[in-house]
Amino acid sequence: MSAPYQAPLPFMRLALEQAARSSGWSDVGALAGSLELLEPVLEGAARLAREVLSPLNGVGDAQGSRLEAGTVRTPPGFPQAYRHFREGGWTALAAPEDVGGQGLPLLIGAAATEMWAGANLAFAMCPESAVGAIEALRRHAAPALRERYLPGLVSGESTATMCLTEPQAGSDLSDTRTRAEPDAEAWRLYGRKIYISWGAHDLTEDIVHLVLARTPGAPAGTRGLSLFLVPRRVAGAGGAAVLNDIQVVSIEHKMGIRASPTCVLAFGDRDGARGWLVGERNDGLGCMFTVMNHMRLGVGLHSTGVAERALQLAHAHARERIQGRGRDGSPQPIIAHADVRRMLLGMRSLTHASRALAYHAAAQLDLAHCQAAPDRERSAQRLALLTPLVKAWCSEVAVEVASLGVQVHGGLGFMEECEASQVYRDARIGPIFEGTNYIQAQDLLARKVLRDEGAALEALLADIERAARSAAGTPAGTLCTELPRECERLRRATRALIAARPAPARLGAIAHPYLHWLGIITGGWQWLLSLEEISVQPDAWPESLARAVRDGARFCRARTASAPWWNTAPRVCWRPGSRSPEARQA
Amino acid sequence: MSAPYQAPLPFMRLALEQAARSSGWSDVGALAGSLELLEPVLEGAARLAREVLSPLNGVGDAQGSRLEAGTVRTPPGFPQAYRHFREGGWTALAAPEDVGGQGLPLLIGAAATEMWAGANLAFAMCPESAVGAIEALRRHAAPALRERYLPGLVSGESTATMCLTEPQAGSDLSDTRTRAEPDAEAWRLYGRKIYISWGAHDLTEDIVHLVLARTPGAPAGTRGLSLFLVPRRVAGAGGAAVLNDIQVVSIEHKMGIRASPTCVLAFGDRDGARGWLVGERNDGLGCMFTVMNHMRLGVGLHSTGVAERALQLAHAHARERIQGRGRDGSPQPIIAHADVRRMLLGMRSLTHASRALAYHAAAQLDLAHCQAAPDRERSAQRLALLTPLVKAWCSEVAVEVASLGVQVHGGLGFMEECEASQVYRDARIGPIFEGTNYIQAQDLLARKVLRDEGAALEALLADIERAARSAAGTPAGTLCTELPRECERLRRATRALIAARPAPARLGAIAHPYLHWLGIITGGWQWLLSLEEISVQPDAWPESLARAVRDGARFCRARTASAPWWNTAPRVCWRPGSRSPEARQA
Repeated sequence: MSAPYQAPLPFMRLALEQAARSSGWSDVGALAGSLELLEPVLEGAARLAREVLSPLNGVGDAQGSRLEAGTVRTPPGFPQAYRHFREGGWTALAAPEDVGGQGLPLLIGAAATEMWAGANLAFAMCPESAVGAIEALRRHAAPALRERYLPGLVSGESTATMCLTEPQAGSDLSDTRTRAEPDAEAWRLYGRKIYISWGAHDLTEDIVHLVLARTPGAPAGTRGLSLFLVPRRVAGAGGAAVLNDIQVVSIEHKMGIRASPTCVLAFGDRDGARGWLVGERNDGLGCMFTVMNHMRLGVGLHSTGVAERALQLAHAHARERIQGRGRDGSPQPIIAHADVRRMLLGMRSLTHASRALAYHAAAQLDLAHCQAAPDRERSAQRLALLTPLVKAWCSEVAVEVASLGVQVHGGLGFMEECEASQVYRDARIGPIFEGTNYIQAQDLLARKVLRDEGAALEALLADIERAARSAAGTPAGTLCTELPRECERLRRATRALIAARPAPARLGAIAHPYLHWLGIITGGWQWLLSLEEISVQPDAWPESLARAVRDGARFCRARTASAPWWNTAPRVCWRPGSRSPEARQA
Repeated sequence: MSAPYQAPLPFMRLALEQAARSSGWSDVGALAGSLELLEPVLEGAARLAREVLSPLNGVGDAQGSRLEAGTVRTPPGFPQAYRHFREGGWTALAAPEDVGGQGLPLLIGAAATEMWAGANLAFAMCPESAVGAIEALRRHAAPALRERYLPGLVSGESTATMCLTEPQAGSDLSDTRTRAEPDAEAWRLYGRKIYISWGAHDLTEDIVHLVLARTPGAPAGTRGLSLFLVPRRVAGAGGAAVLNDIQVVSIEHKMGIRASPTCVLAFGDRDGARGWLVGERNDGLGCMFTVMNHMRLGVGLHSTGVAERALQLAHAHARERIQGRGRDGSPQPIIAHADVRRMLLGMRSLTHASRALAYHAAAQLDLAHCQAAPDRERSAQRLALLTPLVKAWCSEVAVEVASLGVQVHGGLGFMEECEASQVYRDARIGPIFEGTNYIQAQDLLARKVLRDEGAALEALLADIERAARSAAGTPAGTLCTELPRECERLRRATRALIAARPAPARLGAIAHPYLHWLGIITGGWQWLLSLEEISVQPDAWPESLARAVRDGARFCRARTASAPWWNTAPRVCWRPGSRSPEARQA
């Protein structure tokens, strides 16, 4: 048994601080005032993650959720854990106060979101959907609907799902066939949806499904889709709650996140599933994007948690596993091997960059909510640019870090009972769901970069170049010169693309490598911001963290530099017994 | 259910031809004469892989091998499949004729080895150990031992294992504690070995374990290890066979290759396991390296098979999965998306390079066996250089290709019943076993590159540069200029290392990135050789293969170039309906 998940509080605080400072978040009184609650939130979330969620992670993997006589049973302990979660007020953390939430900024909620996934990704996915659903209902639903359903979502008495995918349609929503027929009271829905995460479970009585469907006479394609709220329970004849016409057809057997029931749901197999329109007819996709953009940021945060967990497990194993002897003949742990340290540093370099980038996006979301124009537009523009990047890049980082984590474990990492192997399997969902990474890449390049002729990108590159200038002279070393060089290359390449107006298919071939490139650049940027943060407030951080940041930034440079990186392994890797961050924590 | 594995015969023939030509194999009459048997071997192996082994792959994963009352039961169908395999003479394929084998060159056997793993990696690992054991016994065992055990291994009536790892020692063999006590008849062994692939099973009556152990008074460290043959069955009092003192303590529950029983074996818990010395006392590691070098080449071939299977599954899915509509409104398969084609081309680019490189190494092994000095030394030197590279690089290629395969499948790729998800889990063992890839990287850099001051590497680089010169003017385009440039950078970096004589720990930090760099360079080289092959014999190859090679070489360039590769996605990716190799096969 591995030690339970420990939230990496020093690194989280650092990422929060740099996100708040670099985005301008800390200059907004309404946001910065909430920082006095930061420590209790971090400590409380860390405790719940460590004591309640993490111990269930292996059980959830081994037993999975099961479908028994039309009902989904989650693994032992999950209902109790959810009760803890709900009673602790964690479902209400970042929900607005006007609907009963605690109204904390999303930036603060981001750290908690990361923790849930680091401790137990399958569990974490359940409350995450509600966050987006709350926002979508607040923005798009009629008052009566809001009053009826928001309190339950905020208090955690109900959970939410997104029902988009259909068997014949996959990522392409234009072929959605689920239909909604007008009914005396509201609407009746008929259709089948697949890949519904937490589509049925025993954690709560009610579930709020947000369903894309087509109304009679609606235009073809995605412009004919409307969004419906379809609850698990509706009022029956006498006013008492009865089950709506939704059947769980099956749940998937997946290679990871096995505790999270992924359902095939049949709506309206009997007399139609009762539903209520959210937003305008035929604007369903627009409303759903409110949920999806939240979820995509959520995938970035969750992926960071998964990568962090892989790092923790590998780090603990590397310190504990004795193998061979040092020069003095004493038994030595495998962390003494330069290659093990290289892998651990690589894992940290990617994980911290992923975290800081995702937090930066969360800060922009707060800003977009509370600023006045034109600042609000600037933040919204930055958020729109970063959302697909965070979803795709962080999820790929998690897959890579999880694979390195298995490698550090050697043969043990291939065993089912080793949590590192679970993390490797769990992590693989990130690049697939909530819009495949190809969809994210197309969104990034075609809609977020080219449509405004590179304006949002240019603002980002300018920020990065500014950070590099102000870090010149710090221990960042060559990162300060290499990052601006990469920015300039990306800028020139983007301008060439804008001028060439390539066909969509050509953009499609370029999109993913382009996203990956921008991910590496922004990851390097986040390490620069970390360096800046510890330089600005040298006394605010423990020296061990400051050292880890200096090492991490140097290591990260190896990624950013376009030169072959074989010779850039920093000295911390090849000096056994040196004060590497990995060795120091031992 | 996916379609069964299909051996990619055109690509295999191409890789065989270019390995034979570029290594000088085809100039050696004793080897080249065997080519008349190539086609029947390829066809027969392809049929067995498709009809017998591939259909068992999913069963093996779902049911795994089980330990029941001290006995290992393989999944249903495995004993029968092994009987087919044995009766088809496949265990004897590349075994020397003097011990009852068919004496075919290993280059020809390499294609068959790849097929077994492409169809069913867990199964393929079983006969593979015997190949190395046969060679080790031929070279190191006393005549009586050879006569007693070689015929069974060659005929497949017995299988073999390598017993190196112990619970306390992991990759570090110097701490081996299993001991061998002299006995009237031979030796008695006492100790526990872990991670023994196919350490017990129900496919054959006998199993030949090759066990590293320490004799009384042996020096400490790896220089005090001796190799013993410890059979599952020995002659009892009356001469009848009785079970040797070997207990199966447990079998591992693994995330992949679940049909392959990975055993913990206890030797000598009762009165000592009877064993016989192979080779000289205290030269056990040297003898074991004969097996291990075979196994490492085997991992490269197996990994190629795994990558090929991932590609096949992804390719089939991309052609079959209809999603959305083309410009003319007709339903279109996802292979119409540029990003899907990018992924498929990337998979092929890596898979073919991996195959051709592994076959090239197999050709060198044949040459090292049958040439006279000094040619023999040259081949042995090249083989020694390539063995760790093939083991490590090809296994990492398989992990990457398998992950891309999951991505092409989208949500389906995350489901247990999807073979792509099994391939992803199975592939992950490659970088771990038979010496972790870090061990390979250290072997490559410290022993194979630096010890001879770069001589073997220089010979390889010269071959690559020669291939680039002769391909100039072919459709290889910039690959012909970029590869020599990378060769020169690697050469300079290596010279600097030789001059600097860095400490072992620093070498340790550099070793893996160095190996990866050389892997990319040699992968590009193999694509150049493919181009050369189709230019030299333009009529020998179907035009579809020739086109695929031209596209592949262009795509591969994207990897080799050190420039950011976002803008190198070839036109075949972004021209829907163009004559891409993927689309053409549709």
